Amino acid sequence: LRRTFPIPKRHSIRDDPRCTVFQTFTQNVDHFGFSNTDIFEQRYILNKDFWTSGSPIFFYAGNEGDIDLFCQNTGFMWDIAPSFHAMVVFAEHRYYGKSLPYGNDSYSKPEYTRYLTSEQALADFVYLIEDIRRDVRGAEQSQVIVFGGSYGGMLAAYARIKYPHIFLAAHAASAPILQFSTRCEAFSQIVTNDFLRESTSCVEIVRQSWSSINRLAQSSLQTLTDLFHLCDPLNNVDELKNWLLDMYGNFAMVDYPYETSFLSDLPAYPVRVFCANVTQASFKENDDTDIVKRIVTGVNVYFNYTGTTKCFDIGSQGTPSLGDLGWGYQACTEMAMPMCSDGQNDMFEPMAWNFQNYSDDCYKQWQIRPRAEWAYIEYGGKNVSSLKSHSNIIFTNGNLDPWSSGGVLTPISDQLPSLIIDGGAHHLDLRSANVNDPPSVVKTRQTIVALIEKYLSEAVTEM
Amino acid sequence: LRRTFPIPKRHSIRDDPRCTVFQTFTQNVDHFGFSNTDIFEQRYILNKDFWTSGSPIFFYAGNEGDIDLFCQNTGFMWDIAPSFHAMVVFAEHRYYGKSLPYGNDSYSKPEYTRYLTSEQALADFVYLIEDIRRDVRGAEQSQVIVFGGSYGGMLAAYARIKYPHIFLAAHAASAPILQFSTRCEAFSQIVTNDFLRESTSCVEIVRQSWSSINRLAQSSLQTLTDLFHLCDPLNNVDELKNWLLDMYGNFAMVDYPYETSFLSDLPAYPVRVFCANVTQASFKENDDTDIVKRIVTGVNVYFNYTGTTKCFDIGSQGTPSLGDLGWGYQACTEMAMPMCSDGQNDMFEPMAWNFQNYSDDCYKQWQIRPRAEWAYIEYGGKNVSSLKSHSNIIFTNGNLDPWSSGGVLTPISDQLPSLIIDGGAHHLDLRSANVNDPPSVVKTRQTIVALIEKYLSEAVTEM
Repeated sequence: LRRTFPIPKRHSIRDDPRCTVFQTFTQNVDHFGFSNTDIFEQRYILNKDFWTSGSPIFFYAGNEGDIDLFCQNTGFMWDIAPSFHAMVVFAEHRYYGKSLPYGNDSYSKPEYTRYLTSEQALADFVYLIEDIRRDVRGAEQSQVIVFGGSYGGMLAAYARIKYPHIFLAAHAASAPILQFSTRCEAFSQIVTNDFLRESTSCVEIVRQSWSSINRLAQSSLQTLTDLFHLCDPLNNVDELKNWLLDMYGNFAMVDYPYETSFLSDLPAYPVRVFCANVTQASFKENDDTDIVKRIVTGVNVYFNYTGTTKCFDIGSQGTPSLGDLGWGYQACTEMAMPMCSDGQNDMFEPMAWNFQNYSDDCYKQWQIRPRAEWAYIEYGGKNVSSLKSHSNIIFTNGNLDPWSSGGVLTPISDQLPSLIIDGGAHHLDLRSANVNDPPSVVKTRQTIVALIEKYLSEAVTEM
Repeated sequence: LRRTFPIPKRHSIRDDPRCTVFQTFTQNVDHFGFSNTDIFEQRYILNKDFWTSGSPIFFYAGNEGDIDLFCQNTGFMWDIAPSFHAMVVFAEHRYYGKSLPYGNDSYSKPEYTRYLTSEQALADFVYLIEDIRRDVRGAEQSQVIVFGGSYGGMLAAYARIKYPHIFLAAHAASAPILQFSTRCEAFSQIVTNDFLRESTSCVEIVRQSWSSINRLAQSSLQTLTDLFHLCDPLNNVDELKNWLLDMYGNFAMVDYPYETSFLSDLPAYPVRVFCANVTQASFKENDDTDIVKRIVTGVNVYFNYTGTTKCFDIGSQGTPSLGDLGWGYQACTEMAMPMCSDGQNDMFEPMAWNFQNYSDDCYKQWQIRPRAEWAYIEYGGKNVSSLKSHSNIIFTNGNLDPWSSGGVLTPISDQLPSLIIDGGAHHLDLRSANVNDPPSVVKTRQTIVALIEKYLSEAVTEM
């Protein structure tokens, strides 16, 4: 089973008009070679509402989806830009959104897809910044602070690691840069803990549900199809289970303390709502149908909060703004993150991490194989101490976020602070301030602002 | 005119048998993409004569030639290895020596040549080190100090800049990492100064010689062919002048205080010998033939010190161990270094730097064009302050070395020392200790040893 990186999805509410004004910049398709001279248009958002000459540039390192999705869900940058008089830039990642090097053919053949790498994306960011500094009067000397969440947070950290001459500092939110060498069970355990803190019996029901699903599948896939209100007849029980597995991970990631429309339209504390639904009715012993029906009431929370969903499509996690295809490719090349579960310390079926099987699946789909070691060879992160020569990277992680499994959870040095957000899900700190924010995220954001001020003032001193 | 990077050449004396024991390691041809799964064998030298378990690895970042050439001419590493109990590794750069990704076809077409980049070479080095650490018992935790001279010195600095999790520190000797943004006249002026310090009239004769050559060329190329003892009839006076131009640069680079066999077999202080020859006979006013004959006595010093050369081949600088073809390609892609002369502050014909012409020449030869900004985009070095976030790079430059034009000549920070070698030519500090060494290079080497000791002891403390 390949666990994809199931992050941001199209939210139905798009309320910030600043995130709908796009520009484009012409990039080389291949920064790391000279024989391919193809070019493409990278999409980005540039806002100068608060900016004054010489003030910093706040740069969002776009990740695997439409850039407006990240723009809409990274209110923190907009919230703090005025006090820094900062220019706000959101750069779309190549091969996502409208930034397709070979248009609709970008994924059609290996010769076109081969330029989808994090290294190329980082070089795009650097060229874009150089262009902005050249074109915007007063920006020549502007310092650049790079922000990002999730894979974008990894890119923010990597940007500072590889291009410290361009990026003064990075705010790397929920960036699992250690996920390549972490315990593969960790992610599943954190997901489970998020449910456990709401209800022990909720976790027990989920844990039992896999056997129930398996038994029902053996007798009739049609019964499962009907019980789950699936749009299409189930061909394979694994597809259903993988879809549920991703859903549980997503639940944990977006377990925010207020309504959101990020990965999906969701209530506040969605895990709590899931568990309330699942544990509501009185329990029937040894009744597989009863267990599955309970799970379906929980599925409804994630995929039908608005009450308009007619049936469930297990081919999707319902976030069309995310580039699942692209991320599938990246997970099969640089971003192969080991994932497993043991069924004891988590609520899932036991599942070992088998790199060879994973690699074979990648080869079937893409005719490529991942290199397990490449990410930490290229960027560091085999262990925490491999990062200690760097500076000015603020790592933040929420203790509810399953991706904290690969996060930097303790300060590596005075120059590499790590902030833990108690009660925080996936990059909660990047979201706009909200009345329901836990105190920890309020404090974290204040600390980040103070650190950015410090980095900027040190840079001025050094000049 | 494209000035190539005319560094090391096959020395006729190969006296260190440790430099003749080779191993190979299997590398991916493309580290930065996944669709090309071709592999090749990289050649390297690994010596454990002095090594003890856990002690550091001294790693030479091979540059544009056979690795044994650099091994033979980097005695400093061998000299200091015993006191550090260091393992000594010299890694050949891809596309040079025997490390040819596509064998003899490596330069035959763009699809084969495209993987000749400094980024790919650095990734080779990292994979090789990871392999050594895995395979050599006791080397798992060994710190790596990277050494290099000239382009290899740039690679040493870039290795620490881009892979600080692998390389603890770098000794970057005569590394012109600022050459992309330096004054293009600087190189020619330093060459000229090296001759000027030997003799004012010597410089005057060289400066006049260009007009003499031009006038003689206008009347008869055959006369010039004969006067210069050329092996083949001269087709074009520019070819002769370019050959001489490269020779003057080489003279300045290898102006060592003792006999060497690096770029060529040469006497001690070759520039002094050149000038002594050129100024020897009594001067005949306005006699082009006399001027040219003087220059030829100087050419003899560089190309015929051993007295065995029958004629001069202007297609070569006489260093077959260097990969001129490969460097030509690199100078047409990443390493396009602006070069010019004004004829006033230097002893050459005025020659402007014209990037477009340069790029057109590259396109004619390789069907590729250089990107002038790429090196400092990728590695920093647009200016000195772009490097200041780095650490543990020791920059050394000799004041006789023309490549100091692009060197880091003042300390950037406490973490980035710069050492100037008075009376030092091109990476003199990397050569074995010699009784004729100027005191400055002796002191520089002591400082380097002390700095390496400091970096190693800090690394232990941090663990």
